[in-house]
Amino acid sequence: MLDVCLLGTGGMMPLPGRFLTSMLARYNGSSVLIDCGEGTQVAIRKKGWSVNPIGLICITHFHGDHVSGLPGLLLSIGNSERKDPVTIIGPKGVENVVRSLLVIAPDLPFKLNFVEINGDDFSYSFEGMNIKAFKVKHNVLCYGYTLTVERAGRFYPEKARENDVPLMYWNRLQKGETIVTSERTFTPELVMGEKRRGLKVTYVTDTRPVASITEAARGADLFICEGMYGDNSSLSKARDKKHMTFTEAAEIGAAAKPRRMWLTHFSPSMAYPPQYIDEAKKIYKRVSLGKDGKSIDLMFDEDE
Amino acid sequence: MLDVCLLGTGGMMPLPGRFLTSMLARYNGSSVLIDCGEGTQVAIRKKGWSVNPIGLICITHFHGDHVSGLPGLLLSIGNSERKDPVTIIGPKGVENVVRSLLVIAPDLPFKLNFVEINGDDFSYSFEGMNIKAFKVKHNVLCYGYTLTVERAGRFYPEKARENDVPLMYWNRLQKGETIVTSERTFTPELVMGEKRRGLKVTYVTDTRPVASITEAARGADLFICEGMYGDNSSLSKARDKKHMTFTEAAEIGAAAKPRRMWLTHFSPSMAYPPQYIDEAKKIYKRVSLGKDGKSIDLMFDEDE
Repeated sequence: MLDVCLLGTGGMMPLPGRFLTSMLARYNGSSVLIDCGEGTQVAIRKKGWSVNPIGLICITHFHGDHVSGLPGLLLSIGNSERKDPVTIIGPKGVENVVRSLLVIAPDLPFKLNFVEINGDDFSYSFEGMNIKAFKVKHNVLCYGYTLTVERAGRFYPEKARENDVPLMYWNRLQKGETIVTSERTFTPELVMGEKRRGLKVTYVTDTRPVASITEAARGADLFICEGMYGDNSSLSKARDKKHMTFTEAAEIGAAAKPRRMWLTHFSPSMAYPPQYIDEAKKIYKRVSLGKDGKSIDLMFDEDE
Repeated sequence: MLDVCLLGTGGMMPLPGRFLTSMLARYNGSSVLIDCGEGTQVAIRKKGWSVNPIGLICITHFHGDHVSGLPGLLLSIGNSERKDPVTIIGPKGVENVVRSLLVIAPDLPFKLNFVEINGDDFSYSFEGMNIKAFKVKHNVLCYGYTLTVERAGRFYPEKARENDVPLMYWNRLQKGETIVTSERTFTPELVMGEKRRGLKVTYVTDTRPVASITEAARGADLFICEGMYGDNSSLSKARDKKHMTFTEAAEIGAAAKPRRMWLTHFSPSMAYPPQYIDEAKKIYKRVSLGKDGKSIDLMFDEDE
């Protein structure tokens, strides 16, 4: 349904066997990419997913490890014969930065649109998905993203009958249409129950722990969160470089209670991240280690 | 002595298991890189060589697959605490292109120098190596490079004695110094034989076969040459896209007679290049298939 892949788990620089951190989500034939460092297009190919349906790219911030793969990816999307436009969302200045990188890819065969995030309450709708950006706290302007798929309420024929809705309108109302006749206005609420729980994925990297993250990740189906350092003795380095330790990330998890939480954006100096995960699990049991290519196909809950 | 690695063999886009075409040469503690596509820094790490000694980067042309890795590599060179300048040689406009890419790496901790190739007979000296660029024929301005290490003649004590060179000057003259005294000028030739055969590596990619390539690669110790298509039935495509088939490359080899020749820059559509190498070997027996990370430590010939 909403198929999400953590393409890489590296921070700062790509390593053999560790791609840079980015996330690809597929929904209903369209894909959304968050971040695109050097090698992200290779990670996508390695996973076996296609670059062609990528219609939206969200950039957290303009450090090299989060954008350096854009020219190559866009060239490859072009080579895949995409003709539909690609939209790039990012912090202030996104168009200038990307156009500057595209000095080596001047003739893309599709249109590029740019959306600059303004304010703290940014929201964008794309092919049935909703994207929200929220400010986090790095040493440059940086945003986290939440991607949601909403789910309408259940259809109740008995409610439609109670409300005297003619049978001919049931299907259109169920699809969300509002129907106005000369006698009456029919809204979906006349045949449907309350909105049901949809799907929600929150992606946050390159930040200190701040309240906006907990708020954004609350109850998410999947929360992908940076954990630059596994060892608690690196806390002062984390503070200094505006990153997080596994412990700090897990504490956000414990407060936000996502159903699943994957750590990522590991420091190149952390050769074997698994050695630190047990400590983090003590703080929040649903936290686990991200891995290059780790993916999950999120489904709506079964109806109760 | 002159340690040369073909870091990748891909053309157009990086693939899982196939890095983009580029070459790294190490000599006397300094390194020269030719081309830097997306992922080249990862290929260097995978090989186990260091990015820190890279003081010269030569760019053949400005297509993405030959330069898209520059920002990431330069950031990594910076992270390796290099303080010495890095020089980048490339076609006209090289500084503009690279500065544009560096929008995401604005604060490198070393100085960048740029050298724009002018004319057809370009030569540059770097840390005991000599770099020559020569124009080839692609659909944009593109150069091949020849890297040479010269070798002085042999030292002959008998010649020094015949020429009445005082013993105290022998060592300095042998090192290439010219010594002027009030009575006489002493030149290295007074104690040395003829220059001996040095080392020569020629790197050519993204081009149709042209005479400048044969000229440049003549008698090279190693000739790295593009072969975008293995199958001869792709000849018209090669002509169209300004690349070469294995056969065309091997024909250059047969004319230039390098000691070794490695093919590279394989089309992403060529899944299994080895199937075409036997045909090429029939044309020039010293041609072989390039492989990611293939390297050779070239040594001066034994003295006769």
